[in-house]
Amino acid sequence: MSEPVRIGLLGRGTVGAALAQLIEEREGAFAAATGRRPEIVGVLRRTEGEFDEILERSEIVVELIGGTDPAREYVLRALRAGRPVVSANKQLIAQHGDELFDAASQAGVQLRFEAAVAGVIPVIRVIQESLGATETAKVFGIVNGTTNYILTEMARTGASFDDALAQAQQLGYAEADPGEDVNGADAAAKMAILARLAFHTPVGLDDVVYEGIEGIQPDDIAYAKEFGLSLKLLGVAERHQNGISVRVFPCFLYRGHPLAPVEGPFNAVMVEGPSITEITMSGPGAGGIETASAVLGDLASIVSGTAPVHAIGEPLPVVRDLSFAFYLHLEVADQPGVLATIAEVLGRNEISVHSVVQRGLGDDARLVMVMHETLESRFAAALEEISGLDILRSSPRVIRVIEEEFV
Amino acid sequence: MSEPVRIGLLGRGTVGAALAQLIEEREGAFAAATGRRPEIVGVLRRTEGEFDEILERSEIVVELIGGTDPAREYVLRALRAGRPVVSANKQLIAQHGDELFDAASQAGVQLRFEAAVAGVIPVIRVIQESLGATETAKVFGIVNGTTNYILTEMARTGASFDDALAQAQQLGYAEADPGEDVNGADAAAKMAILARLAFHTPVGLDDVVYEGIEGIQPDDIAYAKEFGLSLKLLGVAERHQNGISVRVFPCFLYRGHPLAPVEGPFNAVMVEGPSITEITMSGPGAGGIETASAVLGDLASIVSGTAPVHAIGEPLPVVRDLSFAFYLHLEVADQPGVLATIAEVLGRNEISVHSVVQRGLGDDARLVMVMHETLESRFAAALEEISGLDILRSSPRVIRVIEEEFV
Repeated sequence: MSEPVRIGLLGRGTVGAALAQLIEEREGAFAAATGRRPEIVGVLRRTEGEFDEILERSEIVVELIGGTDPAREYVLRALRAGRPVVSANKQLIAQHGDELFDAASQAGVQLRFEAAVAGVIPVIRVIQESLGATETAKVFGIVNGTTNYILTEMARTGASFDDALAQAQQLGYAEADPGEDVNGADAAAKMAILARLAFHTPVGLDDVVYEGIEGIQPDDIAYAKEFGLSLKLLGVAERHQNGISVRVFPCFLYRGHPLAPVEGPFNAVMVEGPSITEITMSGPGAGGIETASAVLGDLASIVSGTAPVHAIGEPLPVVRDLSFAFYLHLEVADQPGVLATIAEVLGRNEISVHSVVQRGLGDDARLVMVMHETLESRFAAALEEISGLDILRSSPRVIRVIEEEFV
Repeated sequence: MSEPVRIGLLGRGTVGAALAQLIEEREGAFAAATGRRPEIVGVLRRTEGEFDEILERSEIVVELIGGTDPAREYVLRALRAGRPVVSANKQLIAQHGDELFDAASQAGVQLRFEAAVAGVIPVIRVIQESLGATETAKVFGIVNGTTNYILTEMARTGASFDDALAQAQQLGYAEADPGEDVNGADAAAKMAILARLAFHTPVGLDDVVYEGIEGIQPDDIAYAKEFGLSLKLLGVAERHQNGISVRVFPCFLYRGHPLAPVEGPFNAVMVEGPSITEITMSGPGAGGIETASAVLGDLASIVSGTAPVHAIGEPLPVVRDLSFAFYLHLEVADQPGVLATIAEVLGRNEISVHSVVQRGLGDDARLVMVMHETLESRFAAALEEISGLDILRSSPRVIRVIEEEFV
């Protein structure tokens, strides 16, 4: 095993703390993927550390300070000193992208910033690497979790904007000062970054026309429901015949639109182009550990340099008996006590029933049941008993069911 | 500009032809992303070309033959000769992964196979690169477009399996011999690949327990609808306390499950883990141009070697006047002719109305309308006229609407 990778950490708020913990937990996996163990060799915070000294000691610099000053200066100096940089700072990339990409290019080092847009969704990598040579016509989606949470709550409870915002703040989905989230400026910075990468053109914040959601009234949402519409704060970057447009605006989506079901603090991004049709990606939009996870992915990519050749670990045993919910379809004699007989077999095997439909069918009846989750072996035992019952008119039919387990 | 990248193409069916066309169309973009122009220097097909000669001439080999023989031998020989390989061949990777990864590793060259799983969805790259150092607990989804199309049609029309299959064949969503698709073997190979990469462990086809959809009856789907369930052929690779499991089975999903709305020939994959919560990705599962696009992304990554530093192109003009549908909320005097007045203004500005709700409110009324798509400038002109009408009781409220444009 080679020397550890020396990482300098600028900023140690929520994301920085989560990253430090993740690096410790995933040290072995990181080493397996990249050939080198990660190590944080210096931390810069208001009360600790000195930038020049940390730069001196580090091979890679991670910028988690936020804002543009002094982040811009630190990142430029790191790049110019030949250090690859990972940043989670959307305003920095959106406002100073030209200067930073230029510095990275001149120094021949990587500047990665997956965590700056759409949290854990790897949209930067997909656009830059999977689709780098592909024509993208449109990139759009929900890139601000705070506003999506607020709009979801307004639709669900009929709350006013102010009440939903207060609740988002209480739950940690909105900052004490939510200005840039609710007025669209945060989403605008993210869309400027996505437009730049997708269309290979310089896009400044001035090029983005944006609105927020402060003016949305509960009855707008209520009326829209009657038309089958749901409200989202959408970012849309689009290529036109003679140019591009980058917009952020509150927008109703018809039911059936792939972004309509994206609720709460989730983000989702769609990319469209003639040779890909469309790719949709969704996931949590923020959160300390999710953002740290995106930073970790960037770090691993910088260290491995090229694509990792799949490295095999220890063989893991295959588990054979899993838990599932089951759908059971039975054709039975239509006589008293049939349901009781079946229910007794299930109950004795500790299988609990979620729902039942029974229906007559001449002299027979159809009994269709959905069970709660149970071990396959237990269900198989019950099924064997049921199959042997003389009230059965044909073989039972069984299909697994995945129960809803999402927010 | 350096020398062109010399690409040897093995197989020239639908995907091969689409790739040749895409390489020609995207030559400039490929060169901008990687620094080198792509060029196909040899094609091997049943009636054309000789493998050794093509290998000799190529820097990178693209394998699109399918099946394992002779694809396995060609890919091994290419890797051992120091050529990076891009393959779209799920059976090859699933059945001979250990041997191939070993050969790639020994030769120190890349073996990429994004197109082998889930078509245009970049799930291989996301799992290997974004999540290479991250703990993944579960990878699951819909990885066979043929069966998803058949199940969607059965649910939509009540058709039998045989009729839905015949229709899929007519539309090109199913092969003349659909055996491996409908019996689950195709999905099993893809899930073996995903499990291997996500869990860093050797997974063979023997480790995958799979079922297909041939036994599904229309009334299973009909009954399930009553419980709010929709049927999918699901692949699930999961990490357990003492091992892993990899399964493919038809399965009901509750409404609200992120995979429930995935319909027709689309694929979708979800990845879950403690530091990412969940990432969902969806898109077309197959198609010549979509598969070729995934191959092109792999080729660009091999040539660029490390992550591309964002290269800026020409500035593109920002288009200011876009088309949108609009929601318009008006408080107006409740008197005869109001709707006619508003409608006249809209009509004169060539704006067509999609739906209207009008409701009394004391002496006033609320008029809520959704328009069809129109230029912003045109809608702004109409809105200015409307705002000047003396029947208006407060400022109009306007929100954009995205109309449904998806399958």
